[in-house]
Amino acid sequence: MRRVAISSWATSKFAKNSKMSLLELACDPSAEILKTTIPQKEVDAVLLSSCATDQYSSTIISEMLGLHPKVSHRIDNLCNSGTNAVASAFSMIASGLCDTALVIGAEKADSPGNKLLWDITRGSFRLPVHWAAIFAKAHMRRYGTTEEQMARVSVKNHKSAARNPQALFRKKVSLKEVMSSRKIVEPIKLLDCSAPCDGASAVLLVSEEKAKKLERPVWIKGIGQQTNSASFAKATGDLTMVEAARRAANDAYKMSQLRPSQIDVAELHDAFTILEILAYEDLAFARKGEGGRFVDQQELSINPRGGLIGCGHPVGTTGVAQVAEIAAQLAGRAGIRQVKGCRTGLVHNLAAAGSSATVIIMGA
Amino acid sequence: MRRVAISSWATSKFAKNSKMSLLELACDPSAEILKTTIPQKEVDAVLLSSCATDQYSSTIISEMLGLHPKVSHRIDNLCNSGTNAVASAFSMIASGLCDTALVIGAEKADSPGNKLLWDITRGSFRLPVHWAAIFAKAHMRRYGTTEEQMARVSVKNHKSAARNPQALFRKKVSLKEVMSSRKIVEPIKLLDCSAPCDGASAVLLVSEEKAKKLERPVWIKGIGQQTNSASFAKATGDLTMVEAARRAANDAYKMSQLRPSQIDVAELHDAFTILEILAYEDLAFARKGEGGRFVDQQELSINPRGGLIGCGHPVGTTGVAQVAEIAAQLAGRAGIRQVKGCRTGLVHNLAAAGSSATVIIMGA
Repeated sequence: MRRVAISSWATSKFAKNSKMSLLELACDPSAEILKTTIPQKEVDAVLLSSCATDQYSSTIISEMLGLHPKVSHRIDNLCNSGTNAVASAFSMIASGLCDTALVIGAEKADSPGNKLLWDITRGSFRLPVHWAAIFAKAHMRRYGTTEEQMARVSVKNHKSAARNPQALFRKKVSLKEVMSSRKIVEPIKLLDCSAPCDGASAVLLVSEEKAKKLERPVWIKGIGQQTNSASFAKATGDLTMVEAARRAANDAYKMSQLRPSQIDVAELHDAFTILEILAYEDLAFARKGEGGRFVDQQELSINPRGGLIGCGHPVGTTGVAQVAEIAAQLAGRAGIRQVKGCRTGLVHNLAAAGSSATVIIMGA
Repeated sequence: MRRVAISSWATSKFAKNSKMSLLELACDPSAEILKTTIPQKEVDAVLLSSCATDQYSSTIISEMLGLHPKVSHRIDNLCNSGTNAVASAFSMIASGLCDTALVIGAEKADSPGNKLLWDITRGSFRLPVHWAAIFAKAHMRRYGTTEEQMARVSVKNHKSAARNPQALFRKKVSLKEVMSSRKIVEPIKLLDCSAPCDGASAVLLVSEEKAKKLERPVWIKGIGQQTNSASFAKATGDLTMVEAARRAANDAYKMSQLRPSQIDVAELHDAFTILEILAYEDLAFARKGEGGRFVDQQELSINPRGGLIGCGHPVGTTGVAQVAEIAAQLAGRAGIRQVKGCRTGLVHNLAAAGSSATVIIMGA
C-alpha cells in the first residue's frame, strides 16, 4: 500500500447565513488550494462530502473550478460524510487508482442532513439533543459526571474558537453563561450544543511520490471506521459510551501503530459537550468514567479550532474541517492557535447518535 | 496493490412501478447475496449507489440487512453512480482498508437523477434526448450513419432482454416497429430510448485472499474514469465521439494490459441507440466512423442482458447491474443468455451527455 499525505487545506468562514449557494460555498476553499498548491490538470479525483440533494454536484463543482478529474462523485453519510470522503480518497491513492484527490466538504445551514426523521426507534424524541440528553444522564448517573464538567467543555471550545477566524462563534463564554443558558432537554443547555451553519472546507490528498516534494508532509497513518446501526436503539449496548467510536479508534490505533498516549492534538466530535467527554474515554485518552474530570487536562490539545461547538456544524463539512485543522497543526501552520511541537494528531467524527464513527490518525 | 475479485451478484426485476420503497428495493438483491455467499459479520463496507435524496440511506439499509460494516456511505454521480461505487469499493479493498465490500445500486423511476435542470448550456433543450439527437445528427452527417443502423441496436438489445427475466421490456421488437415508433426529437424515436424504472442490483467485491476460495473468481483487471465537464457544452470537442469514454477506456485497457480485440463480452451504456454506436468506436471495437456498420458484428457479444434499452435505466442502479451481468457471464453463470467461452468483459457507463465516464475491465 502506498503512503498518502495531506499536502494542503483550506476552510472558509462558517456563517449562519452566508448568502452563498452550496456550489459557491464548495468552490471557495477549493479555489484557495488550487491557487497555491496544485495545477488544475493534476487533480485526479474530486470527492464532495455533502448532505445537500443537488444532483451531479461534485461534477458541477469540478467544472466550476476548471478541473477535469478522473473520478468525481458525491459522498454522504450524515455527520461523518466528511471523514468517509477522506477515507475514500485515501484508498483511491493508496490503491494506485489516483495520485491526488481533492476532498471538499460543503453544507448549508438548512441541510436535510440536520433532521433524523427516519429513526422511529426514537419515538417522539427525534432531535439529536434527545439522545445527547440520554447519554449525559447515563454518564452522570453511573460516574457522577456533572453539568459543570460538561459546561467546561463549552467554555474551553468557545475559548479556542475565539482565536479561529473561520469559527461561527468568536466570543468566549464563561462557566456561568453556559450553566445559565436556556435548558433544551434536561440536562442539556443551549451552550452545550453545536449549531448548524453554512460552511465549506477542502483538503488535498497526495501520493507518497508527490508528498516527497513537500517541506513537511502530513501523513495519514491510521483509519478506523465502524457502523453499528442507523437507529439510536441499536447504536450502543452501554449508554455511557459510543461503541462504534471505540471500534473505529482501535482499528485506527492498530493501523497507525500509535498509542493514545502518543497523540498530541485531536479534533473530537463535540456536537454536544457530553460527546466530547465520552470521546475522551472512547479514544482511551481518559479511563472509563473519568471523562468528566479530564476536561481541563494538559496532556494533549483537544479541539484547538473550537470544535463543533465553537466553529458550528455544517453537517457534510465537519469531518473535512477537522482533518484540515489537524493537518495545519501537524504542519506547524496553524497560526495563533498553533499547538507547540505536535507530531501526531487524531480526528474523531460521529454520525446520528454515534451509530457510526470514523477515526483518522495523522502524523508529521 | 491487492487484486480484487467479484464473488457474487444479484439483480432484481426492473419494473415501472414496483410498489417498493428505495430501501426495500436495495435490500432485495443484497439479501440474496447475503443468504448464499457471505456471513453478515464479514461485510466490511456497504456502498449505496443512488440519486435518491434519502438521508443516511446506506446505513439504514445496512441495519435492515443485519450488517455492521466498517464503512457505509452513499455515492452519487447521476447515471454512472454505480460504477463510481464499484471503483470506490475496488480501491478500499486494493488499499487494504477492507477485505469485502457490498455495492448496492437502487433507484426509483421518479429519481431526481432523471432531470438535468442545472445545465443551462443546453438552453431550452434540457432533456437527455436533445443531446442524443445532436450526437446522432453529427454522426449521420459525417459518417453516413443511418436511422436504420440505430434502430438495429434497439432490435438487438430488445432481443437480448427477452431472454432476461430481470429486464423491464421482455418483448422483441422488429426493425419496422422501431423505425415507425413515435419520433421524440429528430432523428430519435421512442424505441431508440431507454426508460427510467424501479430497479436494484448488488455485487460483492472481495480481496485476493478471500477470492482464492472461489471456484471461478472474476477479477477486476482495469478501471478508467474521466470527468470532462458537467455541462453538454464542454463535454466533447467533437460531437461524433464521447471524449470522456475514450480517455476512461484508454486507462482501463492500460491497467488491464488487455486490448480491445481481447474483449469477449461488453455492457455498453445505450441510454440511446446512438450512444452504443459511439461506444463501439470510443472503446476501439470499431474504427472511427464505422460504428453504424458494426451493429450486427459477431466478434464480441454486446449487451447480453439487453442493455439500458431492454432492461430499463434505474439511474444509480445501472452501473452496478452492468457489472453484475459481466461477472455472471465471466463466471459462466448467465443461464440461457450465457456467452459461450467468454474470458474477458468490459463495462462502459456514462453520465449526463457523456460528460463523465467509467470503463471497467474484468477477467475470469
